[in-house]
Amino acid sequence: MQRCDALARYSELPGGLTRVFLSPEGRAAGDAVLGWMREAGMQASLDAMGNAVGRYEGERAGLPSLMLGSHLDTVRDAGRYDGMLGVISAIECVDTLNRQKKKLPFAIEVIGFGDEEGVRFGTTLLGSRAIAGTLSPEVLETRDAGGKSISGALREFGLNPEQLSKVSRKKGEVLAYAELHIEQGPVLEAEGLPVGVVTAINGFSRLRVTLRGEAGHAGTVPMPLRRDALAAAAACVVMVERVAKNVPELVGTVGRIEARPGAINVIPGEAQFTVDLRAPLDSVRQEALAEVESEIARIAAARKVEATVESLQDFGSSACAPWLMRQFERAVEARGVRVRRLPSGAGHDGMAIKAIADIAMLFVRCKGGISHNPAESITEEDAAIGAGVLFDFIHEFKPLSA
Amino acid sequence: MQRCDALARYSELPGGLTRVFLSPEGRAAGDAVLGWMREAGMQASLDAMGNAVGRYEGERAGLPSLMLGSHLDTVRDAGRYDGMLGVISAIECVDTLNRQKKKLPFAIEVIGFGDEEGVRFGTTLLGSRAIAGTLSPEVLETRDAGGKSISGALREFGLNPEQLSKVSRKKGEVLAYAELHIEQGPVLEAEGLPVGVVTAINGFSRLRVTLRGEAGHAGTVPMPLRRDALAAAAACVVMVERVAKNVPELVGTVGRIEARPGAINVIPGEAQFTVDLRAPLDSVRQEALAEVESEIARIAAARKVEATVESLQDFGSSACAPWLMRQFERAVEARGVRVRRLPSGAGHDGMAIKAIADIAMLFVRCKGGISHNPAESITEEDAAIGAGVLFDFIHEFKPLSA
Repeated sequence: MQRCDALARYSELPGGLTRVFLSPEGRAAGDAVLGWMREAGMQASLDAMGNAVGRYEGERAGLPSLMLGSHLDTVRDAGRYDGMLGVISAIECVDTLNRQKKKLPFAIEVIGFGDEEGVRFGTTLLGSRAIAGTLSPEVLETRDAGGKSISGALREFGLNPEQLSKVSRKKGEVLAYAELHIEQGPVLEAEGLPVGVVTAINGFSRLRVTLRGEAGHAGTVPMPLRRDALAAAAACVVMVERVAKNVPELVGTVGRIEARPGAINVIPGEAQFTVDLRAPLDSVRQEALAEVESEIARIAAARKVEATVESLQDFGSSACAPWLMRQFERAVEARGVRVRRLPSGAGHDGMAIKAIADIAMLFVRCKGGISHNPAESITEEDAAIGAGVLFDFIHEFKPLSA
Repeated sequence: MQRCDALARYSELPGGLTRVFLSPEGRAAGDAVLGWMREAGMQASLDAMGNAVGRYEGERAGLPSLMLGSHLDTVRDAGRYDGMLGVISAIECVDTLNRQKKKLPFAIEVIGFGDEEGVRFGTTLLGSRAIAGTLSPEVLETRDAGGKSISGALREFGLNPEQLSKVSRKKGEVLAYAELHIEQGPVLEAEGLPVGVVTAINGFSRLRVTLRGEAGHAGTVPMPLRRDALAAAAACVVMVERVAKNVPELVGTVGRIEARPGAINVIPGEAQFTVDLRAPLDSVRQEALAEVESEIARIAAARKVEATVESLQDFGSSACAPWLMRQFERAVEARGVRVRRLPSGAGHDGMAIKAIADIAMLFVRCKGGISHNPAESITEEDAAIGAGVLFDFIHEFKPLSA
């Protein structure tokens, strides 16, 4: 908890927490993390993508590794646990092993990813994609708001973007990837549980829906003759909620809406809204998406309104590996905590690492489900239980082949 | 129809029709109307509020009058019939009487009101409120966007605002007020009728509703734990429509809506929308208003969302006088047209004149219910039937005391 507080002081803004990729405060946080890694008995350095990488050798040098970690960058006006808690917890676990002079039959790598949130360059998961070898060099020409490219920023930071290929790992070098992270949702709090085991990082589908009816005088057009685009949109919003409520683990959100012309005394002739659908299983999400689209068409037809549905984004889910989930579950049960499996609605570095290794995640309860906000909060007790579960998971870890 | 076309050429904008109160084009239109009034055998002049007033004496000079008319100002980018058709039709009727050298047992006054729409000064019904004696002198200090007051604009126009009190009529001087106007709605077109008899100029209630729930990550907060302000607002929009559909002649509109923070991946923590309710009977509107308010409270409570409902405007309806409606209905039947009674959703000069005389209105079918738009359109046949009905109404008019 003290280390989370310490990292939170490395911020672009005094009095808040904003720390973007390749910033001076990012360097300060990385340096602190590298120092803690070394204190915990790891060899530690920044890689060519600005990830803080620490390695704790196993029974002999050069063994494949269990990779642990999370990210060190933040959103604007962030909380202090999203990302950082996972890095610090992993270092604490290694530190405990090191104090016990314990070597395991595998190496442990702890990574503090330099960019996960994507605030500065608008591209997420830069650090983990580099480690996974899925970051194409062209992405390095993406520019920030000031016109600086990622490769230029890396060079200014003293890193060599041409060494990007050396950052990436091959399949087999990494036995598994495990990440501890705050839940960023209210499920564990609602069920009175300190930790939960993640089933999958949800895929998502995003739509923009435009409905066109007929504008008219709010006083002169009788109800049966109206083609009110906003009334149709409202029926769609209610429908999205109903579809999402009817399917376990599906969430559906309408976050934006607009009615045009948008005057108190004019029947809206046009309405536009967005839809965000997420589910742990792609088949569930695709089925819900089809239902939402057909319901929009049905509502529009019944109201003689024209509907246009555009797909904005469509990403598949990243399932956690059942064999790793079981090992986390045993560690949770060993602490006397009821096992709660839950999906992750937010994206995480594991989505990228999955390209080279099976992944698993442990969620720690956070207050009110609030995240991406200075009010983000966890208890010391929950942090201790989370770190304890992670330690047991590491200590008892058996690779799939074993 | 030709005279409507002629007046439409007096516009602030070439190629469109915009004619506001006390403008050069307003003077040109008023002069044309005064000329037509004189050709129809009337004494005609502008009064101190810029109304074009023509008087056709009855069997002897100085008899109480049947007042006819409508307005000569327009909204921005207007149609050519809203207002003007009523003034021109009334003049045509007097012209016919004059050609027949017919004098009636009452005088006829035709008024082209200078301001009904209120575009320039943001205050509606200036002309008719002056005639009714309900325009308080302080209103004359209202300023337009250029900072000019109504009284200043009147003086520049060559009128004397201190004579405002001379414009107003006393009860008894006016036997009744009758106005022909385009419907501005689609009811008559839907029923295949050229004209209809207005039952009342609807009252209206306007609300601003703010719902406060809890913002959250669209991916991480499960459906049962959400307090989505927009989903609650959408349920309210659907409810307003349902309430309005269930009550004959009530109309309900949500014209504006906003969700905050308004991001595709954030559950809205706040939503705001407007409600516009109108009905011919105040009791019906008040009852619907109470139902809408209690339903908003119910929806908010069920969703654990906080609702704030502000009343923005609340105006009572102006009923048309049954004895005048019957005289219009006889004139409609005499032309072989089925009598259709319908309320007026839009406001009209009669709302003001009602302070000094009973009122009645005859609606003429307009294409697609479209008004306040260059696409406003009526047929020559419907205009002829409307003018014919108005002529018969005038010719057969019996005051209430008779």
